[in-house]
Amino acid sequence: MTFEGMWAELAPIGRSASSGGYNRQPWASAESELRAWFASAASARGLELETDAMGNQVAWWRPAGVVRDERTPASAERGSERHGPPRPGAILTGSHLDSVLEGGAYDGPLGVVSALAALDLMRSRGVVPTRPIGVSVFTEEEGSRFGLACLGSRLATGATSWSDARERRDRDGVALPDALAAAGLDVGALEDGGGLVDLSGVGCFVELHVEQGRDLVDRGAAVGVGSEIWPHGRYRFDFTGEANHAGTTRMEDRRDPMLTYAMTALAANKQARLSGQRATFGRLEVAPNGTNAVPSRVTAWLDARCSSEEVLTDLVAAIERQGTERADRDGTALAVTAESVSRSVAFDPALAARIAGIGDWPVIPTQAGHDAGILSAAGIPSAMLFVRNPTGVSHSPAESAETVDCLSGVEALADTLTELAR
Amino acid sequence: MTFEGMWAELAPIGRSASSGGYNRQPWASAESELRAWFASAASARGLELETDAMGNQVAWWRPAGVVRDERTPASAERGSERHGPPRPGAILTGSHLDSVLEGGAYDGPLGVVSALAALDLMRSRGVVPTRPIGVSVFTEEEGSRFGLACLGSRLATGATSWSDARERRDRDGVALPDALAAAGLDVGALEDGGGLVDLSGVGCFVELHVEQGRDLVDRGAAVGVGSEIWPHGRYRFDFTGEANHAGTTRMEDRRDPMLTYAMTALAANKQARLSGQRATFGRLEVAPNGTNAVPSRVTAWLDARCSSEEVLTDLVAAIERQGTERADRDGTALAVTAESVSRSVAFDPALAARIAGIGDWPVIPTQAGHDAGILSAAGIPSAMLFVRNPTGVSHSPAESAETVDCLSGVEALADTLTELAR
Repeated sequence: MTFEGMWAELAPIGRSASSGGYNRQPWASAESELRAWFASAASARGLELETDAMGNQVAWWRPAGVVRDERTPASAERGSERHGPPRPGAILTGSHLDSVLEGGAYDGPLGVVSALAALDLMRSRGVVPTRPIGVSVFTEEEGSRFGLACLGSRLATGATSWSDARERRDRDGVALPDALAAAGLDVGALEDGGGLVDLSGVGCFVELHVEQGRDLVDRGAAVGVGSEIWPHGRYRFDFTGEANHAGTTRMEDRRDPMLTYAMTALAANKQARLSGQRATFGRLEVAPNGTNAVPSRVTAWLDARCSSEEVLTDLVAAIERQGTERADRDGTALAVTAESVSRSVAFDPALAARIAGIGDWPVIPTQAGHDAGILSAAGIPSAMLFVRNPTGVSHSPAESAETVDCLSGVEALADTLTELAR
Repeated sequence: MTFEGMWAELAPIGRSASSGGYNRQPWASAESELRAWFASAASARGLELETDAMGNQVAWWRPAGVVRDERTPASAERGSERHGPPRPGAILTGSHLDSVLEGGAYDGPLGVVSALAALDLMRSRGVVPTRPIGVSVFTEEEGSRFGLACLGSRLATGATSWSDARERRDRDGVALPDALAAAGLDVGALEDGGGLVDLSGVGCFVELHVEQGRDLVDRGAAVGVGSEIWPHGRYRFDFTGEANHAGTTRMEDRRDPMLTYAMTALAANKQARLSGQRATFGRLEVAPNGTNAVPSRVTAWLDARCSSEEVLTDLVAAIERQGTERADRDGTALAVTAESVSRSVAFDPALAARIAGIGDWPVIPTQAGHDAGILSAAGIPSAMLFVRNPTGVSHSPAESAETVDCLSGVEALADTLTELAR
C-alpha cells in the first residue's frame, strides 16, 4: 500500500467531526484501533511484530541471513555522554500514533507511516540491509493522558522506572496500571520487572517528524535534519491578592492578582520575542473565578524553551523579576515553582552530519520533545528528519504538510536507512 | 437576645473551617438552618411569620390596634417612575441571609440581625409604631446558585415571572423547581400563580447593609444613607486566535489570544481607574488550557459599573476599542456580548433626605445590587443604610465591621423606623 493509501486509512481514526481535531489518547479506543492498524500493516509486509506491556510496538525487517542479536559493545556504552558514529546493531525508525487533545494528523503518525513507506521503497529498489531495521511506535509520547511526555520510550530505556510510572493517574483519576489492564495489556509482566521492548540491540534511532515551526519554509527545503532539542521548563506562577467585590471596591483599593498576571504574560512574550526564545502562558486557573469578584488568586503555567540552559534560566528569571516588580505595585504576591526542567539534548553530531550529507539537507534545532531525545539521552545515537510544515502550526487541527513534501520525507528516510544499513 | 448574641449564633453556620469563608447558597443545608434560626428569632419576639414558596420570610410586628391591611392608594402607584414621600402602609426592613461562594459574614445577615435588634431597641424604648413593621429575608439575593441576583425579591415584586424563573438551573444542572421541592417548599403554589409574599401593603422598605467600599471610612462616619445604585453590566469578551505548539512556534508566527486578553484586562483597569468607575475581569475560561499549547480561545467576563448609564456605555466601548486594536496587532479577533445590563436605580430622594436628617448621616451611592433596588424599581419607596467597613472588603472572608459601628447601625435603623412609623 502506498503512503497515500496508509494516510487515508488513518485519517478518520479518533477525529472529531465537529472540530476536525484528533483525540488519540493512549489506551483508549482510537489508539487501540491505531495499534491494530499497525499490527496489520506489519503483518502485510511480513515484518515480525514485537509488542510490550506498555503498548509499545516494533515491527522488524530481518532480511534472510541478518540476525537481530548481532550485538556489539554498544550496550556497554549505554548512558555514556559521548556518542560515536552509528554503532553496529539494529537500526530503529518510527515515531508515535497518540495525539494531544484536539491535535493534528501529522505529529507522530507521519513518522510511522513514512517508516513503513520507506521500507516499501527500499524493497522496491532491491535494497538488502546488512542489519535488522525496526519500525517503532512508542506510546503516550505526548503525555496527554498521564502527564509525562514520552512515557513509552522512557520506560523502555529505563529513564523512568515502573515503580514511579505506576503511581500516575489520568485526569479522571484512573491509575496507569488500571488503564493498561483495561486495554488488555500484561501489567503483571511490568510488576515483575519485565514486559518492555528490548532496545539493547539497537545501534541507532532515526525519527521522522513533521516540523513544528517554519524553519524549513524559510530555508526553502522540504526536509531537514535535527541538531538538538532545546532545554524546556514548565513553571507554575502563583499570583495571590485579595478577593473583593467587583462593583463596590474602588480601583485604588484593590489587590488584584489578575493585573499582575496580565502584565507578566505580556512581559514574557516581549522577553521571548526580543531574544528569539519561546515563552507561553497557555494554562490558567482563577479563584474564585466569578464575574462579580476581584480574584484572590491566579495560577498560570509558563512554558519556556531556549537555545541553551543558561538562556532559559535567564529568561525565566527576567520574567519573574518583572512579575515581582508589578506585584509590588499591585499589592499582590508572586511565587514561582519550577515543575519540570528538561536539559537540552544534542543529537549525535557525526550521525546528523552523515545523514545531512546524503541529501544536502539543512541541520536545524527543534524546541519540541521527542522519543528521539529520550533514546539519545539513554546513549543510543539518534537523529531526526523533519518534513516542511507550510504554516508551522502544530498541536492543532490546522497542522499540515504537502503530500509532495511527505513523499520527499519518505525518500529521505529510505535513503538514510539504506546508507546506515550498508 | 442582644445583637452580639444573635451574631454569635449565626457565626458558625455555613462557615468553611479551612478558609473562613461562608457558603450559604440558597435551598441547601446552611441556608435552611438560617431560615430556621430566623423563624425561631421571630417566634421568640412574638412576631407573626409569613413565609412563601421561594423561601422568602417576613416577620411582622403588629402592635395592638395596628392592622396590616391599612391599605391606601399606594398599591395603585406601583410601577410609577416618580416616588413621593413614604406612603401610608406597612414598613418593611431587612436584607438576606444567603452568601456568595466563599463570602463574608456581614453581607446580608447584618441587615437581618440589625432589623431584629432595632425592633428590640424600639420596644425597650416604649415605641409603639402606628403601622406594621416587617422584618424581611429575601432569598437568593446573591444569585450565587441560579445566576440571577435578587431572585426572591424579583419574584415577589413581579420583576421576574415564575415562568421565566422555573427554567433556571444551577451549575450542577438542578432545576429551580427541583431545588425548591427538595427544600420542602410548595412549588405547586408557584405553578398555580401564587405562593409569594404579598408586598402590596408595603409603604416603604429600608435595608441596612455593610458598606462594600470605603466611602464612610473617608468621611469618618459610622453610618450612611444610600442615594442610588450605579448601572451595572456584564459582558462576555471572546478572544479567538490559533492553537499552536508552545515550544516550536516562533513568537512572531503566533496568533495568541492570551496576549490580546492580557492587554485588554490592563486597559480596562486603567480606563476605570482614570475615570473613577469600576471594571473587573474576574472570570476566565481558556481553551484548550494546556501548558504546552498556545490557546485557541480565551473567554473573559467584564463586570463594569459606572456613575451613569452613558458613562458605562462609553467605558465598555473604550475597552472594546483598545482590545480590538490589540487584536489587530496580534492577529486575533475580539467579539463582545452584553450578557446583562442593569439600569441605575435612584432611591426615593425625599425618603433618603428624611432619613439622613435624623442622624446627619452622609448620603452615598453604591455600586452593588440589592433587594432595595428591586423594590424601588417596583414602585415601593426604598432606602438603604450603610454601616462602615474598615477595609472596604466584601464578597470575601475578610469582610468586616466594628461591633461599635454595627451597634450604631442598629440605633440608626431603630431611629429611622421610629420616625417613619410615627
